[in-house]
Amino acid sequence: MQSIKTLQEKKNTAILLIHCPDRQGILATVTEFLNRNKGNIIYLDQHVDRQEMIFYMRVEWELDRFAIPSDKIGEYFDTLIGRPMQMVWKLYFSAEIPRMALFVSQMPHCLFDILARYTAGEWDVEIPLIVSNHQKLEPVAKRFGIDFHHIPVTKDNKAEQEALELKLLGEYRIDFIVLARYMQILSKGFVDRFPNRIINIHHSFLPAFAGAKPYHAAHERGVKIIGATSHYVTSDLDAGPIIEQDVTRCSHADTVENLIRKGRDLEKIVLSQAVFKHLEHKILVFNNRTVVFN
Amino acid sequence: MQSIKTLQEKKNTAILLIHCPDRQGILATVTEFLNRNKGNIIYLDQHVDRQEMIFYMRVEWELDRFAIPSDKIGEYFDTLIGRPMQMVWKLYFSAEIPRMALFVSQMPHCLFDILARYTAGEWDVEIPLIVSNHQKLEPVAKRFGIDFHHIPVTKDNKAEQEALELKLLGEYRIDFIVLARYMQILSKGFVDRFPNRIINIHHSFLPAFAGAKPYHAAHERGVKIIGATSHYVTSDLDAGPIIEQDVTRCSHADTVENLIRKGRDLEKIVLSQAVFKHLEHKILVFNNRTVVFN
Amino acid sequence: MQSIKTLQEKKNTAILLIHCPDRQGILATVTEFLNRNKGNIIYLDQHVDRQEMIFYMRVEWELDRFAIPSDKIGEYFDTLIGRPMQMVWKLYFSAEIPRMALFVSQMPHCLFDILARYTAGEWDVEIPLIVSNHQKLEPVAKRFGIDFHHIPVTKDNKAEQEALELKLLGEYRIDFIVLARYMQILSKGFVDRFPNRIINIHHSFLPAFAGAKPYHAAHERGVKIIGATSHYVTSDLDAGPIIEQDVTRCSHADTVENLIRKGRDLEKIVLSQAVFKHLEHKILVFNNRTVVFN
Amino acid sequence: MQSIKTLQEKKNTAILLIHCPDRQGILATVTEFLNRNKGNIIYLDQHVDRQEMIFYMRVEWELDRFAIPSDKIGEYFDTLIGRPMQMVWKLYFSAEIPRMALFVSQMPHCLFDILARYTAGEWDVEIPLIVSNHQKLEPVAKRFGIDFHHIPVTKDNKAEQEALELKLLGEYRIDFIVLARYMQILSKGFVDRFPNRIINIHHSFLPAFAGAKPYHAAHERGVKIIGATSHYVTSDLDAGPIIEQDVTRCSHADTVENLIRKGRDLEKIVLSQAVFKHLEHKILVFNNRTVVFN
Repeated sequence: MQSIKTLQEKKNTAILLIHCPDRQGILATVTEFLNRNKGNIIYLDQHVDRQEMIFYMRVEWELDRFAIPSDKIGEYFDTLIGRPMQMVWKLYFSAEIPRMALFVSQMPHCLFDILARYTAGEWDVEIPLIVSNHQKLEPVAKRFGIDFHHIPVTKDNKAEQEALELKLLGEYRIDFIVLARYMQILSKGFVDRFPNRIINIHHSFLPAFAGAKPYHAAHERGVKIIGATSHYVTSDLDAGPIIEQDVTRCSHADTVENLIRKGRDLEKIVLSQAVFKHLEHKILVFNNRTVVFN
Repeated sequence: MQSIKTLQEKKNTAILLIHCPDRQGILATVTEFLNRNKGNIIYLDQHVDRQEMIFYMRVEWELDRFAIPSDKIGEYFDTLIGRPMQMVWKLYFSAEIPRMALFVSQMPHCLFDILARYTAGEWDVEIPLIVSNHQKLEPVAKRFGIDFHHIPVTKDNKAEQEALELKLLGEYRIDFIVLARYMQILSKGFVDRFPNRIINIHHSFLPAFAGAKPYHAAHERGVKIIGATSHYVTSDLDAGPIIEQDVTRCSHADTVENLIRKGRDLEKIVLSQAVFKHLEHKILVFNNRTVVFN
Repeated sequence: MQSIKTLQEKKNTAILLIHCPDRQGILATVTEFLNRNKGNIIYLDQHVDRQEMIFYMRVEWELDRFAIPSDKIGEYFDTLIGRPMQMVWKLYFSAEIPRMALFVSQMPHCLFDILARYTAGEWDVEIPLIVSNHQKLEPVAKRFGIDFHHIPVTKDNKAEQEALELKLLGEYRIDFIVLARYMQILSKGFVDRFPNRIINIHHSFLPAFAGAKPYHAAHERGVKIIGATSHYVTSDLDAGPIIEQDVTRCSHADTVENLIRKGRDLEKIVLSQAVFKHLEHKILVFNNRTVVFN
Repeated sequence: MQSIKTLQEKKNTAILLIHCPDRQGILATVTEFLNRNKGNIIYLDQHVDRQEMIFYMRVEWELDRFAIPSDKIGEYFDTLIGRPMQMVWKLYFSAEIPRMALFVSQMPHCLFDILARYTAGEWDVEIPLIVSNHQKLEPVAKRFGIDFHHIPVTKDNKAEQEALELKLLGEYRIDFIVLARYMQILSKGFVDRFPNRIINIHHSFLPAFAGAKPYHAAHERGVKIIGATSHYVTSDLDAGPIIEQDVTRCSHADTVENLIRKGRDLEKIVLSQAVFKHLEHKILVFNNRTVVFN
């Protein structure tokens, strides 16, 4: 589809996500390292979990006058600070645009929401690949000019079809996967290949109503609020680290169909918010929970 | 405590809560009955569950010119309309002020919220009795001039202490009970004496985190929203019909203590909203779910 | 675009929206009229404004066994009930699919949201026409297979361009217009041609921040919540009857750009919810306020 | 009233609130200063407004092993860091319990909410004084054992009555004032004596419906959401820096009386949240806007 993006000035920054045992001076050490090497900090947020004594940090700085070449930053940082302070850290560059694959089934609302943002240039991402176990949404993929692969999955062919998917993900150099109402459970082997890099939307306020047909279960229980939950996928179904949740009111007057209709709006927004946070490198995972920076 | 109520003009109305199998003409029959007998309708709301084909209705009318004496309304209605239409119905009069007992333990926030509304005259209710398994909140009861009975409950004395409570409830002619963070589980025998007349506040977004220590469980799971749920008590713990729920946002930065603090505000508001709906006779229960009229 | 709709069983119903001075027996009269003529009521909601003594009602019934032919219902109802009871009423048929025009400028998020729902078959509507004062979104219209007319408007040519638009609206037999972030003010003459049939989205919580650049104004004022408001357009700018509003939290850390980004999600959902209510014929306007049925 | 507080371990900390022109190294400088002098940091949050290039920071550290005596911290900090970096800073000690005065009129809900939290020990505050222009709430003050001064204000006696209030505030050594639905406008002279130390609750979602009777105005406008706003009082009515806001849904079915009832719950929670943030020294004011730390 012809781009309708508005040209934006591109940032040229590096981003560090860090966690480590808390101790005095971490913040001072990191900021001093960046300052000394002429890295102008444009974002810094940190959090200390004082119960578990873990220090979390996200820092972003401009590379234009930074004294250390980009391909050496990781090595220098690890040697001088990371290893001495027992840090787990990740380094990202704003110039490297992540590549995302979409997995869908038959419901189009999350897919449309993501493709609309993509087409409008809201996100710094490439979406070269859509995989589906049904053919229904192929026309949507086509109109947006994205490759669509129909890979039906049954109990019997699951292993080989996942192998096929993994092959495709490799060929398209995919960094992370978004399950946009994909109604298949991925195997542990598949999930382990993309740790904290598969984002799912579950159509309930987890941990309530995990599993199948959450709107039916919510109606049956007579709740007054329904929700949606985006989370990283782990091999434990609907139990991965929660990224974002939102809710909306309902009442006795809402049929299951109404809940499903209302829920669609929640699902697409909550999923897209999670994708956006992931793209901004603002999510850290530790102990099956997320730290989501503002 | 000296009253700070502002005198209000009192309504003199009757209220009917009805449910029955849906069929043509129920609404017309009921409204025609009231109109013909000069009952000026000041509230009417109805709902049809078209999946279960159940008709629900709340109607309120002025008694001043109503042709049927108040003590005969039930009989007339049942004979002429209720029985022929297989209705389950309840009749209330705005002039009859319900009598409420409060059960509390050690946390005062819900108790204060209810007593503040009571003292301020927000609610048409009498609160002659507070029961507690601890002595801690006795000073609060005293300052508001309400009888306080300390009835400690252990595994061993539960049956006899509940018998004592039931005796008190009888003596004080209590219509319904509000558990304002009362940390004891009532026996099935006790609950069965007050069907849909015991209101509890659970400090989670049910059905998530039923049972003990829901804020700890919410923190452990890493949810991004916490909630509170008011419900009628049944013998099935935390599984009774939900009356009201509300939520508030939290984040990785919230300790368990923060969740508990934020939760207090939710709990007291959600409980008081349920009590208010109950006092207005706007709640119908069917199949373990509530219909809550506006 | 190739349809991805799922076939749904179509309703064949009539819908009446009524308001009139309140008096005894309106509800009974209307329901009795429908029942007597074998109109199976599948929706009924009513509201009485007891301060202004106005009765509001929405009733929907099945036509399959209804005794009065569809083209005579209006006449019969008006003669037998409407005129005697001084009703203002409107009659709609579920079989008549409304035709909607979209007016857009340069921002695509509301447009995409509406076209996604349209393509997915969420709404019973036809969208044959998109009008814009810019060319930027023409590619979007093309991909969804909808006629796009570029009609730039300046101070000098406004009258003739609006005449052109009105001509197009006639040719396409448009029933109502949705302004999906259309950044032009329509003249009184234009608006008067579509009373309560032009829906706008304003990117603030009206009446706060009416007029231009509401996110800048919200940032300047330091609010902690931003909102969006959908409303019918009147000749009084941003002052028409409000249909729906929603809000989201913000903080000191949000730049104007962040507010704009967060606001986009509000705007598209709040606009689409208003369109949906309009399509369901669930909105009544009286005294510049809406009654929105559930 | 007999205390129902639970004994808590008291923190012994110092808190610095800082803002200054942004430049490299501020964070490193401050944390290094604290670390070097054995001040164990237990809270640190900072924010940079990159449009105005202002750096904001809140840091809290334990005093037990801190090398600089408490009465010298301000001097040392100003000499070594504050002045060189052009900082505006404030220093607080957790051991110094602030003294708060309540100003009320006739509505008790905010008063009760604050006194309940005070009695329950939720807040580290002393409330020795309640001032009112009416006598109605005197019984509430009495029951909670707090001095109550009835100071009626008219156009003619305003200056002398405010002088009397200021005298009382001095005698009671009051640090800050909370207007808990106090229905009098304070003069500029009075307000200037307590800059950013008078907290008001306005019963609307400001800047919508500033001034008198906001619920009537909201009803008249037909909004679908109402709100409440807590803010510091400035001499410009309802235009001071906003601390907290919250909203709740309403509909055409809500009378003005309903809006007032729903609004009470918003008002008391939003006011108490602002007071809590103030007590925690988590609010910074700059350019008529607040930075509210988490």
